[in-house]
Amino acid sequence: MDGPSGHAPTHDRVVLLAGGVGGAKLAHGLAAHLGERLTVVVNTGDDLERHGLAIWPDHDTVLYTLAGLDDRDRGWGLRDETWTAIDQLERLGEDAWFRLGDRDIATHLLRTERLARGDRPTDVAVALRHAFGVRPTILPMTDSPVRTEVDTDEGTLDFQDYFVRRRQEPEVSGVRFRGVDAARPTAAVLAAVADAIAIVVAPSNPIVSIGPILALPGMTDAIAARRAQGVPVVAVSPIVGGRALKGPADRMLVSLGGESSAVEIARRYASLVDVLVIDTADAALAREIEALGIEAAVRDTIMTDDDTRAALGRDVLAIAEGRR
Amino acid sequence: MDGPSGHAPTHDRVVLLAGGVGGAKLAHGLAAHLGERLTVVVNTGDDLERHGLAIWPDHDTVLYTLAGLDDRDRGWGLRDETWTAIDQLERLGEDAWFRLGDRDIATHLLRTERLARGDRPTDVAVALRHAFGVRPTILPMTDSPVRTEVDTDEGTLDFQDYFVRRRQEPEVSGVRFRGVDAARPTAAVLAAVADAIAIVVAPSNPIVSIGPILALPGMTDAIAARRAQGVPVVAVSPIVGGRALKGPADRMLVSLGGESSAVEIARRYASLVDVLVIDTADAALAREIEALGIEAAVRDTIMTDDDTRAALGRDVLAIAEGRR
Repeated sequence: MDGPSGHAPTHDRVVLLAGGVGGAKLAHGLAAHLGERLTVVVNTGDDLERHGLAIWPDHDTVLYTLAGLDDRDRGWGLRDETWTAIDQLERLGEDAWFRLGDRDIATHLLRTERLARGDRPTDVAVALRHAFGVRPTILPMTDSPVRTEVDTDEGTLDFQDYFVRRRQEPEVSGVRFRGVDAARPTAAVLAAVADAIAIVVAPSNPIVSIGPILALPGMTDAIAARRAQGVPVVAVSPIVGGRALKGPADRMLVSLGGESSAVEIARRYASLVDVLVIDTADAALAREIEALGIEAAVRDTIMTDDDTRAALGRDVLAIAEGRR
Repeated sequence: MDGPSGHAPTHDRVVLLAGGVGGAKLAHGLAAHLGERLTVVVNTGDDLERHGLAIWPDHDTVLYTLAGLDDRDRGWGLRDETWTAIDQLERLGEDAWFRLGDRDIATHLLRTERLARGDRPTDVAVALRHAFGVRPTILPMTDSPVRTEVDTDEGTLDFQDYFVRRRQEPEVSGVRFRGVDAARPTAAVLAAVADAIAIVVAPSNPIVSIGPILALPGMTDAIAARRAQGVPVVAVSPIVGGRALKGPADRMLVSLGGESSAVEIARRYASLVDVLVIDTADAALAREIEALGIEAAVRDTIMTDDDTRAALGRDVLAIAEGRR
């Protein structure tokens, strides 16, 4: 049975900080080895209210992927999905750019109803995890509202407005996590970090997926405290060969004044992590990364199927084990 | 263009007080002759919150029927419906006895979102009517929450709990409209009544469909004031040959101490209406009804298709015309 903090009482837990698709794939790869010993802390900065529904894109991507129900062809949402409700909303004159599948809507209805009755997001996440039969724990990074906004050449946009409606086309000149200063990591997140034998940073967008998690007051201190006790922190670069595997991370890194490379990821995570896992395609960057005081571990990081997900999960765990 | 009260400015309006299916059919039959000159005042006592959605069963039955989208085989909801979301909710462990179709969910999403942002129910009804391209005005009887509860041999139940989940099986010993004393008819409803050249009471359940409308403080006075000015009030009996055509009205009338007959309907409406339209099957009851001081008009009242709906609508309008 779960404790009140929403995770099984275990002291050999691995904590993964994750955004959407890249985070979900590595979560799946780690879960193949860890099962319920995995705790995924998900970014909530992408969350939104749409058509009256509370929608958590990163959480649900992790949830559906861990449940084995993710649609791998489409790249988001549930398999075997239908679109009757959203098509009808469009027919009724609503602006239906955020496409909600009918099965997916069930998740949002369950969540919206529980939040409306006063349940905390952390408890709702536990309920959803149980409903989907998922063994790893999935924790929202905070129970307080945090909303990512981006400054662009089209003005300031809510994150999903930029990401989905405007298809990441505007150039990003600034990023803000509205509400983050007043927010805190949940007790469940802090307990998971305090119990972790390894902390992994997923190959998610460092700015808008991992950024909000690390911006929570107290979060980097909690990780640093654990690191000081000898717990390794291992990140996987989301940039391979200078390109983001998915999403706008590469263009964002550049438009915000950096470069699009695994070295830039190392710079951003230099004070946080012990090891950066980079792809074999970037092996030549290992020396430059290690000059920043971080171990560079060269591995195959492209996750195309269950086997490559599990292989990267195994590699990351072995790297962490080697640092303990 | 609509005025702020949600209806077109017209002074030859006919007002129909209606519940669900029977009310929707007569609304459809009247609309065939009246178009935008029809204003339907719908019961809101059946409304409920379910899976986080604001659901208005009687309103939506009238809306879908007037839009020509009602499923006549199933007897409720939209045609060409699918059930993906509610089946998924059930799979997630939710108690899914209130069956919501995927297209129907779009209506509830639009409504829930607008109510959450602070729109009044009356304004939301206008938005839905426009979205569905419906010409008659549909007005919730009140913008305040009123919830019908029934006392039964299984305890006190919310109306939909009794009606849908328990399939109207428990015997009803009492009915309450929670919140009705603090509620008022909307300004739009009172304006429609004040402008009406005829007021029609639909063949809906007199206790739980018409009952809540008439229980609103000021409602019967508003109708009586109009009647005193010579505006006819015509009701259509929902009881034919001692049986309700649909729903539990017949059993309710008996379990609440009356009898199941058109005469009982006449008794209940005696102080309110000028004419009771009864079915040809009940012609023998006309004299007994007229002894109560009400004109009994014998007509074919069974609405099985568009033609019989329009025929009853025409008959009702002609009866009202004859009283003016």
